[in-house]
Amino acid sequence: MINHRGSEFVVILKEVLEGLKWSYQTMNDVLIFPASGSGGMETAVVNTLSPGDKVLVANIGNFGDRWVKICRAYGLNVIDLQFEWGKAADPKIVAEKLKEDKNREIKAVLFQQNETSTGVLNDVKALSGVIREHGALIIVDAVSGLLTTDLKTDEWGLDVVVSGSQKAFMIPPGLAMVSMSERAWKAYEKSKCPKFYWDIGIMKGFVDKGQTHTTPPISLYFGLHAAFKLLKDEGLENIFKRHHTLRSMVREGVKALGLKLLAEDEATASTAVTAIVPSSFDPEALRKTMRDEYGMVLAGGQGKMKGKIFRIGHLGYVDKSEILAAIGNLEIVLNKLGHKVELGKGVRAAQQVLLGG
Amino acid sequence: MINHRGSEFVVILKEVLEGLKWSYQTMNDVLIFPASGSGGMETAVVNTLSPGDKVLVANIGNFGDRWVKICRAYGLNVIDLQFEWGKAADPKIVAEKLKEDKNREIKAVLFQQNETSTGVLNDVKALSGVIREHGALIIVDAVSGLLTTDLKTDEWGLDVVVSGSQKAFMIPPGLAMVSMSERAWKAYEKSKCPKFYWDIGIMKGFVDKGQTHTTPPISLYFGLHAAFKLLKDEGLENIFKRHHTLRSMVREGVKALGLKLLAEDEATASTAVTAIVPSSFDPEALRKTMRDEYGMVLAGGQGKMKGKIFRIGHLGYVDKSEILAAIGNLEIVLNKLGHKVELGKGVRAAQQVLLGG
Repeated sequence: MINHRGSEFVVILKEVLEGLKWSYQTMNDVLIFPASGSGGMETAVVNTLSPGDKVLVANIGNFGDRWVKICRAYGLNVIDLQFEWGKAADPKIVAEKLKEDKNREIKAVLFQQNETSTGVLNDVKALSGVIREHGALIIVDAVSGLLTTDLKTDEWGLDVVVSGSQKAFMIPPGLAMVSMSERAWKAYEKSKCPKFYWDIGIMKGFVDKGQTHTTPPISLYFGLHAAFKLLKDEGLENIFKRHHTLRSMVREGVKALGLKLLAEDEATASTAVTAIVPSSFDPEALRKTMRDEYGMVLAGGQGKMKGKIFRIGHLGYVDKSEILAAIGNLEIVLNKLGHKVELGKGVRAAQQVLLGG
Repeated sequence: MINHRGSEFVVILKEVLEGLKWSYQTMNDVLIFPASGSGGMETAVVNTLSPGDKVLVANIGNFGDRWVKICRAYGLNVIDLQFEWGKAADPKIVAEKLKEDKNREIKAVLFQQNETSTGVLNDVKALSGVIREHGALIIVDAVSGLLTTDLKTDEWGLDVVVSGSQKAFMIPPGLAMVSMSERAWKAYEKSKCPKFYWDIGIMKGFVDKGQTHTTPPISLYFGLHAAFKLLKDEGLENIFKRHHTLRSMVREGVKALGLKLLAEDEATASTAVTAIVPSSFDPEALRKTMRDEYGMVLAGGQGKMKGKIFRIGHLGYVDKSEILAAIGNLEIVLNKLGHKVELGKGVRAAQQVLLGG
């Protein structure tokens, strides 16, 4: 460890923040908090809004529910606009909802770039377009989506974007990152939610002096610093391509086995995680065998999808060999569980994606 | 990394929580949040108190000021009972203040076990005695003090005790731990501070199922798990003794060099960090030379002590060889800065502590 109020840390902090701006495609401030992604979400809310404020959540899953819970915990007046799990938020429906708001009472619209619980990408560009017309703040949870597909913070006018260390940044959990546009800083001045730890103005005051407000998780800063060397060498376009390819490998492999994808629409299918809806087998039994006998951990369902789906993560440090292995193992385990599939068929479909065929 | 909603994590979480109870000397719940120590302090406040509540802060330094700031940020009515920096909170004065509160309006008394900024230990046992007579909740920031000297959470009736991963637990920053007594849980039921991330009831609900509310900083859990193996082998009494010995080495070494200790009273001198008040030399120049030429990082002053003191940390992974080296380096650098001291005199005094003389 090093002294986090010393000169070595100043250099690391500076380079890490510069790397974040690059990842976010922004000139806005990006600040880091010692927290999991949910702490970043809370930071976004308490720094830009006030109790009683009306906000709209375009809710497509479990993390949409989290926006609703955080906003309600702080006494905000939440319109919970729910879409079917497995589908993206429809920009037209969001636009209609905003048009109903003649008196411009809605102060912010909150949504996910990638909804981890269902494996669905929102069309952030289209959503931000309709929200900008209305004038509400655009607050995006990009914790699991950032770097897996394009996100242009400045070009799309995103006011607050939240990310976390443990996804495409490829390091352990424990850091939450939050960007603030000029409009967001103006909202900060008026925001009346109580705050100390999450106070982004206090944090910025320290960061401008090369420090952080409270003790930073130094080991994770070291990791993030190293991750940016890898990521920048690869370049944004290649990082996106890598994630898009892995997504296609998983989807084609799974479809070839006759399994049902929760996110049916290719255009909104997550570049971070794919959710699969089992037909005749128990997803929990599948996950247990995959873990115990093949050392491969698949995620289960969250919220109302608990026990109803399983999910294959394909972001960050996961690479194409692991995807081939995952589909190969999946074929074996499905057969073991009595759900007959042709061995190698899914793997072949994934290979064909790699061969561009 | 492992799946934090999987069976491997269940085992680690259970063992880590058990280790924390051992460290705290408590049967109370101890919960872990992904945060720095200040997040733990905020957790203590927002889960037991409500806006408008009167609280008393026994404030002996920069982290006492932090209690005041957090409480005020949440609209609490704070009595800021300030003691001179370098001194402990006088239990008699705290008792008098509480006696003035005839209508029992003070809901909680907040203070530090160890005030890092000045290197002073409070007499937690005596303070908790007088507070128990009054009936207010006892909320203790033990972030830098826990494990450096005795703290009997249950025997002394401490309602909320906050600690952090980066001090005597010997691992990097990023975890905040918070214990809750039965009285604290009753206060939680009535508390009206807004909360989601810090909501300790939600956290407990997850922990009872072997999970955490939000994504845990897994790498730090691994570290804490390993640290408990070392700490338990050593035993609480030996851990306290080790820290007491290092404290004496630093104090005797520094005194032998004719330097002034900020905490003059041996009984309240910190077992974690020692603050030294320079006479004829600049503490910042001393710190710079120590770091640049001797690779040894000393802390500076915080808050109103900035630029007026320097501090030698002697907790956690620091051992007696490093203390000997620190005093040896200090002697050289003082001479270089024109503050003549007899070479070896401080080292000899520290050695005599080890020889029990």
